[in-house]
Amino acid sequence: MLPLPSRCSIGEDAFRLDGGTVIAAPPALDGVARWLRGELSPPTGLPLPAGPPGPDAITLALSDAEPAEGYRLRVEPDRVSIVGGDPAGVFYGAQTLRQLMPSMVYRRAALAGARWLVPCAEISDAPRFGWRGAMLDVARHFLPKADVLRFIDLLAVHKLNVLHLHLTDDQGWRLEIRRYPELTRVGAWRRESMVGSRQHGRFDGRPHGGYYTQDDVREIVAYAAERFVTVVPEIDIPGHSQAAIAAYPMLGNTAAPVEVSTSWGISSRVLNVADPTLDFYRHVLDEVLELFPGPFIGIGGDECPKDEWRASPHAQERIRALGLRDEDELQSWFVRQFDEYLTARGRRLYGWDEILEGGLAPGATVASWRGTVGALAAAHAGHDVVLCPDTSVYLDYRQSDHPDEPIPVGTVLGVDEVYAFEPVPAQLTGAQRDRVLGAQCNIWTEHLPSARAVDYAAFPRLCAFAETVWSAPGRDLAAFRHRLATHLGRLDALGVEYRPDAGPLPWQTRPDAQGWPKDRAAREAELAIMTARIARLSDGS
Amino acid sequence: MLPLPSRCSIGEDAFRLDGGTVIAAPPALDGVARWLRGELSPPTGLPLPAGPPGPDAITLALSDAEPAEGYRLRVEPDRVSIVGGDPAGVFYGAQTLRQLMPSMVYRRAALAGARWLVPCAEISDAPRFGWRGAMLDVARHFLPKADVLRFIDLLAVHKLNVLHLHLTDDQGWRLEIRRYPELTRVGAWRRESMVGSRQHGRFDGRPHGGYYTQDDVREIVAYAAERFVTVVPEIDIPGHSQAAIAAYPMLGNTAAPVEVSTSWGISSRVLNVADPTLDFYRHVLDEVLELFPGPFIGIGGDECPKDEWRASPHAQERIRALGLRDEDELQSWFVRQFDEYLTARGRRLYGWDEILEGGLAPGATVASWRGTVGALAAAHAGHDVVLCPDTSVYLDYRQSDHPDEPIPVGTVLGVDEVYAFEPVPAQLTGAQRDRVLGAQCNIWTEHLPSARAVDYAAFPRLCAFAETVWSAPGRDLAAFRHRLATHLGRLDALGVEYRPDAGPLPWQTRPDAQGWPKDRAAREAELAIMTARIARLSDGS
Repeated sequence: MLPLPSRCSIGEDAFRLDGGTVIAAPPALDGVARWLRGELSPPTGLPLPAGPPGPDAITLALSDAEPAEGYRLRVEPDRVSIVGGDPAGVFYGAQTLRQLMPSMVYRRAALAGARWLVPCAEISDAPRFGWRGAMLDVARHFLPKADVLRFIDLLAVHKLNVLHLHLTDDQGWRLEIRRYPELTRVGAWRRESMVGSRQHGRFDGRPHGGYYTQDDVREIVAYAAERFVTVVPEIDIPGHSQAAIAAYPMLGNTAAPVEVSTSWGISSRVLNVADPTLDFYRHVLDEVLELFPGPFIGIGGDECPKDEWRASPHAQERIRALGLRDEDELQSWFVRQFDEYLTARGRRLYGWDEILEGGLAPGATVASWRGTVGALAAAHAGHDVVLCPDTSVYLDYRQSDHPDEPIPVGTVLGVDEVYAFEPVPAQLTGAQRDRVLGAQCNIWTEHLPSARAVDYAAFPRLCAFAETVWSAPGRDLAAFRHRLATHLGRLDALGVEYRPDAGPLPWQTRPDAQGWPKDRAAREAELAIMTARIARLSDGS
Repeated sequence: MLPLPSRCSIGEDAFRLDGGTVIAAPPALDGVARWLRGELSPPTGLPLPAGPPGPDAITLALSDAEPAEGYRLRVEPDRVSIVGGDPAGVFYGAQTLRQLMPSMVYRRAALAGARWLVPCAEISDAPRFGWRGAMLDVARHFLPKADVLRFIDLLAVHKLNVLHLHLTDDQGWRLEIRRYPELTRVGAWRRESMVGSRQHGRFDGRPHGGYYTQDDVREIVAYAAERFVTVVPEIDIPGHSQAAIAAYPMLGNTAAPVEVSTSWGISSRVLNVADPTLDFYRHVLDEVLELFPGPFIGIGGDECPKDEWRASPHAQERIRALGLRDEDELQSWFVRQFDEYLTARGRRLYGWDEILEGGLAPGATVASWRGTVGALAAAHAGHDVVLCPDTSVYLDYRQSDHPDEPIPVGTVLGVDEVYAFEPVPAQLTGAQRDRVLGAQCNIWTEHLPSARAVDYAAFPRLCAFAETVWSAPGRDLAAFRHRLATHLGRLDALGVEYRPDAGPLPWQTRPDAQGWPKDRAAREAELAIMTARIARLSDGS
């Protein structure tokens, strides 16, 4: 099983799903029962109707004896029972039940000849952390709705419960906002570019775009909720905002025309700090809060160059009027305006660790991506923190140093390295450790233009990550590898195009691996820059 | 509703789906009931369990009074009944029931606030043709399994019942064959190419590949069967075989090395006609027949240049030994070997209209793509025929002559032109007309590298096509346009990225529309060649 349950013993005998099997559930678990039937009926061809508990039943139940999100799964020759501390716990027990079945159960139509035996088992299980997330960057490359729903299913298979959607960036705005239609009419696509494209593998150059309508978002959020996944939206401010400025130039600092960015990296075009801009984003967030009912709302806050503010009379006047020291404090002030906005509405601000630089309301939660220094600083300052250190859980980083590896960025980060990730930094002590809500892996998509590419980057590393946030500490790599080998059969059945352990399949190699003119010097220079940057960030300087 | 039913009247009152609604079905319709529950439960959040017919029930039933694939759907304030001539008819009635509901019913999770009212109605309906197909070329660009399953759902929404999968071509072999693993190890991918790539928009140049395992195929076939879609596989011979020759050079005519093709167009590298090649493909077909239980097996047979055979001593000897006149007769002999193979196993050969040139067994069925001449010739010769004339139903053809249109091939083929398509050529008379099994639209994917691109090409033209094969002749374009406008809301809910009537969205435009160096002369030359080729083919010469 993957992630590894807390306690598990497997017996000799087996329960058999057949035409007489029913699902028994109290009304509070109707949704879980419906979901389980929806998953098991297509591959087995069995109706699995509602029925009374007892022989021939898969019985779902709640009990205060189980912890939150925890469950006890018992498979006996004549019955199955899943008792959860809450509906999420029952759901995770049902996911484990699927893992006890042949991997064919992950297919979507009945295959002749399969027998649906479940080995007798006694499993007791609960997650280590409450925040078990994945961040998906749908801004750099739009992922169609159907692929997002599929990704949510894959998160749920791995018992993850947070989907952090990075909805806006310099290269695209992906969320319909009724009040500001230009955000998607203009901001949802970028034109093609020759700049730095083919030779350096840095930009694919093609026109690209797409966005989620509000109905799409409601569907995604509801679909995720049925699988106990909370969607955390992120509207990145005040940097990473060039697509918004392209749509509404009044948001920018200069009159120079700007278009949705067609190159990667950090744009110098950032939001101005004028009141209309604050109002604009409050209105945006009004609609965001309506769409996303979860407690956490991401506002980004990362990588905001200050050059424009240094040159802007308005920004300088704001600094003077507020008695601030510099542009860094101005950013802090800017972010705090939204902290107050969210707190007043019962929500919690969630941002990258840069938001720490200048003081925040206590409710704000920090995503620590620059090594673990952000986590230390946040915990010291009394903030909740979610770990996502780039060198451990950035799943867009290269998976080996072989030149055919498709991802040209980052350090080498293999499955084993992800599996070695420990969410709680050793330097935290006592109560500070309680500040760690959990962790999330981050999937940036500059170089992942499709669901197939996301599959390659995310799997099987996401499987290793899932175990670091679900299972108890103290990991056994060899045993994990053994379980992963079985788990890959499930991914095959799910149609996940994961990276094989032996290296990329020929069609998964990088576009310029075997034929494009290679500019080796340029690539090495790029790598040196990235490596230096990562080293610098890890130092926290 | 789309496609338009034979008879339809809508009343004032409505049936309401709620927590008490059940689905009543006899055992023979268990599968349809399970499918309907699987579609309606997620968007409505209702359990819709099995229950007795009568008030509050959606009752499914069979009756000899209805024709094959036909149904009668009656919605009354307190009940719904669908009576079909066979399970397929009931399934189509259930599809029509979905169309009577708000378009939200096509989403996959429950959205707050939706009310599930179905207007009272009395609908009687049956298809005009038994072969209502779509050909999907997964050889030029591999479409991942999840996307194929989604495409099958979209066919079923439009009451189409044949998915013709073009599994092999010069540019890729997409089907696992246990006996010949090199077909996928070597043949399932092509390396990148600079040749004719960027400037002319003719080849995307990237490494590309993928294939379906036999388990994948079993899942696809079973998933399709549950939706009353028959999958017709196509293994293209003796032309369009370069990927196979790359994998097994013994299949070729020369010792010159060959790789999976990295350019579009017709390769001169074709199969040799030696006995080992015949045996090889019989073994391939042994596995194909195991996987695809439908009556029709495609062998392609199109566009086979004869240059290699003219230069091959072995081919020339074969011509002499068999007393054939020329290479055309040799191809005919070659195809007939597989006609005999398939007939002996109770299957029917299905091939492009080129297979007519030389005589075939009566059971062979012809896909007439070069205008309607193939259909006339086939019907005259006593063969069954499926119409798919390129200028009417090739959905990869450009949708307008605007330079931003992403598809650089073919003639202009808009929704209205597809809607004007009449499957039975006027020149056919009497019994010949009975030879027309139906029609299929063809989606070649040289320029459709993803599901998003396929969506753009296929929709909404496929909606128009569906009506030409389902509904009675005598079409009203204005009324269709009106129904299509409603139908687009369903496609939106399904997440189909169709072409808007006003033209492509910015990110749907062709890659070189606004920035790549344009070689206008080269593009016009290419267009002239295509136009001439189409004119020639339409003449049947």
